[in-house]
Amino acid sequence: MEFAIFPIDKGEHVSQYVKKVVEMIDELPYKSQLTAMGTIVECNTMEECLSVISKANAIFEHDVERIYCTATFDNKPGKSDQMEHKVKAIRGK
Amino acid sequence: MEFAIFPIDKGEHVSQYVKKVVEMIDELPYKSQLTAMGTIVECNTMEECLSVISKANAIFEHDVERIYCTATFDNKPGKSDQMEHKVKAIRGK
Amino acid sequence: MEFAIFPIDKGEHVSQYVKKVVEMIDELPYKSQLTAMGTIVECNTMEECLSVISKANAIFEHDVERIYCTATFDNKPGKSDQMEHKVKAIRGK
Amino acid sequence: MEFAIFPIDKGEHVSQYVKKVVEMIDELPYKSQLTAMGTIVECNTMEECLSVISKANAIFEHDVERIYCTATFDNKPGKSDQMEHKVKAIRGK
Repeated sequence: MEFAIFPIDKGEHVSQYVKKVVEMIDELPYKSQLTAMGTIVECNTMEECLSVISKANAIFEHDVERIYCTATFDNKPGKSDQMEHKVKAIRGK
Repeated sequence: MEFAIFPIDKGEHVSQYVKKVVEMIDELPYKSQLTAMGTIVECNTMEECLSVISKANAIFEHDVERIYCTATFDNKPGKSDQMEHKVKAIRGK
Repeated sequence: MEFAIFPIDKGEHVSQYVKKVVEMIDELPYKSQLTAMGTIVECNTMEECLSVISKANAIFEHDVERIYCTATFDNKPGKSDQMEHKVKAIRGK
Repeated sequence: MEFAIFPIDKGEHVSQYVKKVVEMIDELPYKSQLTAMGTIVECNTMEECLSVISKANAIFEHDVERIYCTATFDNKPGKSDQMEHKVKAIRGK
């Protein structure tokens, strides 16, 4: 899963908000990668992915008036290590 | 929330799969709108939105090898009736 | 194609900005639908779709510091009237 | 900009298609990063970004029946080096 979440009502600079989300994800036992456009998190199940978004939203919810979040899920049930595997499949080993 | 979910491994025609998701959403007590690009669902909380995606994913998970899902959340905590309100704010009453 | 475009640096209420985009699209010779989450535009080619995004971005570019835009394209080369057809394929006639 | 583009009508394994897109992007004079969920490309203008999507779509268009593409643009007019800057703003130097 890749997702991005940020407040719309706090002006142009949102990195202090995104920082809190990234720190929360760092505490989780999932492989993740922060990019310029969002965070990629590899969970074992869809439920786990959705729970990460829920936790991220909870960080904002009490002091933000409007939260925007985009998420993309590429779910291959029963498969793991896709974050690394997918890039290798394209780049070669 | 707007989301789209479909199998990638079942060929070009995915409407029979999407139909099951839409029927599931129709049973839920939320306002929703099916469009050519996805389904918009207005829930009261982020948890409810994430639960809709979880239910949609569960429909596919046992007989699909690869599921793709995109979701966008526009969360205004404590506000309701945004689906109608937002279009009116742009189009006028 | 469905897309949403809005400024991040102008606070919570962005409908006056989105309104300009919608008015621009209304002038174009494409079928379109404004929803609570974005605008669906049916063009004949990918080039036409990308040109709509370019025009929308141009509306903002001189007085906005940060513009966020999400777009999803469902391109069936050579096919038309998909906006209506896709909903019918799911809802039945 | 981050984007992902792939055929829906070619089955579960799409890496040979994505590979062509990545090779095309490698030839371009823009900073880019391939991730498990898409490709991030840093262009100077929105026009350049849209042109990359157009080129990617052209790779598929003659032998694919249905192409799906998602794109997210984070446009800060007049600013450069955001790909690196944004991650640093969150992770610290």
